[in-house]
Amino acid sequence: MSRAFGVRLGEALAERRHLCAGIDPHAALLADWGLDDDAAGAERMGREVVAASAGVAACVKPQVAFFERFGSAGIAALERVLADARAAGLLVIADVKRGDIGTSFAAYADAWLTPGSPLEADAMTVAAYQGFGSLAGGFRHVREHGKGLFVLAATSNPEAREVQTAVRADGRTIARSIVDDALAFESPLDAHVKSIGVVLGATLDLADFGIDVSLPPASPALPVLAPGFGHQGARIEDARAIFGGLGWALLANESRGILSGGADGLADRIRARSEALADALAVA
Amino acid sequence: MSRAFGVRLGEALAERRHLCAGIDPHAALLADWGLDDDAAGAERMGREVVAASAGVAACVKPQVAFFERFGSAGIAALERVLADARAAGLLVIADVKRGDIGTSFAAYADAWLTPGSPLEADAMTVAAYQGFGSLAGGFRHVREHGKGLFVLAATSNPEAREVQTAVRADGRTIARSIVDDALAFESPLDAHVKSIGVVLGATLDLADFGIDVSLPPASPALPVLAPGFGHQGARIEDARAIFGGLGWALLANESRGILSGGADGLADRIRARSEALADALAVA
Repeated sequence: MSRAFGVRLGEALAERRHLCAGIDPHAALLADWGLDDDAAGAERMGREVVAASAGVAACVKPQVAFFERFGSAGIAALERVLADARAAGLLVIADVKRGDIGTSFAAYADAWLTPGSPLEADAMTVAAYQGFGSLAGGFRHVREHGKGLFVLAATSNPEAREVQTAVRADGRTIARSIVDDALAFESPLDAHVKSIGVVLGATLDLADFGIDVSLPPASPALPVLAPGFGHQGARIEDARAIFGGLGWALLANESRGILSGGADGLADRIRARSEALADALAVA
Repeated sequence: MSRAFGVRLGEALAERRHLCAGIDPHAALLADWGLDDDAAGAERMGREVVAASAGVAACVKPQVAFFERFGSAGIAALERVLADARAAGLLVIADVKRGDIGTSFAAYADAWLTPGSPLEADAMTVAAYQGFGSLAGGFRHVREHGKGLFVLAATSNPEAREVQTAVRADGRTIARSIVDDALAFESPLDAHVKSIGVVLGATLDLADFGIDVSLPPASPALPVLAPGFGHQGARIEDARAIFGGLGWALLANESRGILSGGADGLADRIRARSEALADALAVA
């Protein structure tokens, strides 16, 4: 029986590893690193982040768009980065934000979550414009293969608010309903931490999105993947205030903040951010 | 100056080509075709559909999930199918349903819409869970490179309704706001048909989604990519009743209906469906 994504994530969090290190090989960052803006450059950045994150961060999160822009060569580079990361014992969240229905979504889930797939990751980010139930093709991988999903709920880009605060016929906002649906998802493999989580921007007031953070923590805890700390302005010291009862299985994503400055000093930056997160969350 | 996607689409429609032929190499269909469930099988199906569609259909629409499941080998196969289709004079809609924000969405648009990219298509499908404005990274390719976008608006899977009928703070449904935003988009390259369109399921009553089809046609006309005819039950003879003023630049997608039955007879099935669409829309 596979061990659940939530169980493995829970172990990392118990070791005070809360950092999710982004791998964002976009043109400006590759130039900053002195690397060519091609698949080989993206692979090099990815493997450097993996090496610097092993044993320090909880996970790495490649932004797949920056590999996909190089076509099949970029995807082949990504396959090597993913294999590297998994071999290093890091959890890998493929940041693909895929969404579709029926057999099409199932094919995306097969691509990223099937054991032995060339693109195998531990979890993937997904979007539910076509409804939470449209993601069903991924649930089998969660329940049978110990994989994870992070569903976009409330995101910090300004133009997202008009969609994510829209009110459904049942009176709940879209963002709230995503959180509720993730909380309601059950897997026989789960223990203290669930294997389906949500993406919530740390710079938001979640009450604006109809999400009540004053509720007690769920059990199992809901993983929250939170961009917005550091570079984008949210303070990790405020994490408990921002997420309240939703903050008990918190992964703080940092990308630009750790990648800016090139390969020199990367390991120091990742270690410093990971320690700052651990310290702030321990006393918060 | 590039010719606009909408202009090229308008030419195909003026020639009474309304069929968008799906390329959906999922396992069951590959078996039906006697092909292996691998990247080579997917490529073979794709190239057969291209050959049978050239000069008959308006466009082909590869469902990228079914290629992505084979990793970089599948993406390399897709690159050859895309190149084949463009060489055959078919418009290519990459059915990728990508969505993200800022530089990440821009990287997806770069992947699929940059002239000379290995994955170059003429248009791509996109999802706006993070807001219509999050797609801005694609607008440059529309306005400068003559590319197109089809934004998911109202889709026919039952679990989509709860999201797409949700009401925004301005009183409009999400589906309606997507249609409005697409209608409001302007490109200096456009003439009779716009280069940003929407995906609307043909089996839906669009009034349920807050979309008023009694309005007069927009000018330029809004392209509508409509799954749901044939196999899924909507009758092309009812297209004017279903889409009303939104139906003046209609692309009817058919996938299973033309793919089922194998390579033998494929060209006949595609020609028959294309002619049925042309006849029904001419008299409707």
